[in-house]
Amino acid sequence: MTARFGTVAIIGVGLLGASLGLALKSRGLAAAVRGAGRRQESLDQALATNAIDTAHLDAREACDGADLVVLCTPAALVALKMDEIQSACNEETIVTDVASTKGLIAAHAAHTWPKPLRFVGSHPMAGSEKYGPEFGRADLYEGAWTIVCPRDADPAATKTVHSLWEAVGSRVIETTPEEHDAVVAVTSHIPHIVSASIAELAGEAGDVAPFIGNGFRDVTRIAGGRPEIWRDICLTNPDAITEGLARLIDELAVVRKLIQDRDGEGLSDFFAAAREARTRIVPE
Amino acid sequence: MTARFGTVAIIGVGLLGASLGLALKSRGLAAAVRGAGRRQESLDQALATNAIDTAHLDAREACDGADLVVLCTPAALVALKMDEIQSACNEETIVTDVASTKGLIAAHAAHTWPKPLRFVGSHPMAGSEKYGPEFGRADLYEGAWTIVCPRDADPAATKTVHSLWEAVGSRVIETTPEEHDAVVAVTSHIPHIVSASIAELAGEAGDVAPFIGNGFRDVTRIAGGRPEIWRDICLTNPDAITEGLARLIDELAVVRKLIQDRDGEGLSDFFAAAREARTRIVPE
Repeated sequence: MTARFGTVAIIGVGLLGASLGLALKSRGLAAAVRGAGRRQESLDQALATNAIDTAHLDAREACDGADLVVLCTPAALVALKMDEIQSACNEETIVTDVASTKGLIAAHAAHTWPKPLRFVGSHPMAGSEKYGPEFGRADLYEGAWTIVCPRDADPAATKTVHSLWEAVGSRVIETTPEEHDAVVAVTSHIPHIVSASIAELAGEAGDVAPFIGNGFRDVTRIAGGRPEIWRDICLTNPDAITEGLARLIDELAVVRKLIQDRDGEGLSDFFAAAREARTRIVPE
Repeated sequence: MTARFGTVAIIGVGLLGASLGLALKSRGLAAAVRGAGRRQESLDQALATNAIDTAHLDAREACDGADLVVLCTPAALVALKMDEIQSACNEETIVTDVASTKGLIAAHAAHTWPKPLRFVGSHPMAGSEKYGPEFGRADLYEGAWTIVCPRDADPAATKTVHSLWEAVGSRVIETTPEEHDAVVAVTSHIPHIVSASIAELAGEAGDVAPFIGNGFRDVTRIAGGRPEIWRDICLTNPDAITEGLARLIDELAVVRKLIQDRDGEGLSDFFAAAREARTRIVPE
């Protein structure tokens, strides 16, 4: 099973890209790991931590002759990167990505990538508010779910992408890009927007440091994430997010009405249902 | 400085009450710690962990001759408990509480408690989604802020309550009940409502377990809290919470509009401001 994924090109050596390189290399899964990035500094860091074997400022150079290309750029750049590397890939090259939104990318692949389609979208549910190759970890994907969206893809390519994530320790499920985007809007994108909104609201209240407890710390932790990443996520999953935000706003208005009405029973039911849902979704 | 707080009666031996008993006893701050509760089982547990010296099913019995009474019952019960224990307290007895809302309790004290007022409200910013005496910790209050609301209170009583929290390791600030309630609505109560709403929204989306990342875990952690506690907080701080919820709803509607308009710059600004606020409030 040595080097089962051959030569792998990782385009973008941030937290996710560097971690993938470390995982592939530590498990002997790649004959060579090439890293491409726009900043020499990040590439040097990825080389220094042994996350990649060779560094490339030109993504096309990294893809030339690669067996597997993994686009680890922010969501909004994936389609552009696909255009950029397309002529550097051959008909055997399998391409995937790690972006948090899948619908627009799948549509772009269907419209622009040669058939049989060897692009298969992925979204590993791993990462943190930290970013940059220096936070890369060989075990980042271990135990995390990865969602694979193989719409219209060549079955052999789907199988390879599926096994890539399993090989680095992920559990994998397959779904459609639409289903993926609708669910992560609710489990990830809207929680982030809400976390940011709470931080802003508290920021307007002056010096609130003495009034902060663990609840505030937990709820606003992800508000420390990079603005441009979350801007791009909003811009690449707008329909599911706006639809989910409308439902959240309605729900908050209902709770507000319960409080205005001093409806203790309604409030108990609301908090009990939320606790039940949380316990079911995250059984800790 | 031995036994500087004399005989202390803790009414309610949950997480906060049991932790206070443990802190007082481990630091030799009380001549005796009496615990009162409605359930023998909780009292037995508090006795077993040495959080209290004696157990009382009758709160009045625990208060009889006590120098300091700390009401550690849920917010909605504090006023009722004050009524219940009033005739068991003498004019020297100093009384405080630990409830998360302060306005209604301060108003009740002002209307019903004998003058000079020796009731001084407190709110230690400590605790977790865990509850019950078995989670009590002698160091729960160490490093945590405690907000003390001494409106119209006897200065000597205020000084004692202030020093109680410092003696168990807290940092103390004093403010008005209104200011307290307005700020914690934003830093604690509304974050909880939002956390619960996100858990509910995700619960409606079916089997979402593979789509859960650390962000969701963090944002919804406090949704596992006890429904009745949060119902009571909403019912005892309704004005500040409904006002803050209205502002949050407006803010979410603005973000929703930014996404609908594909306003990348506006979204970047929103997320950057939130990150700045979060970093300022919680410099980790």
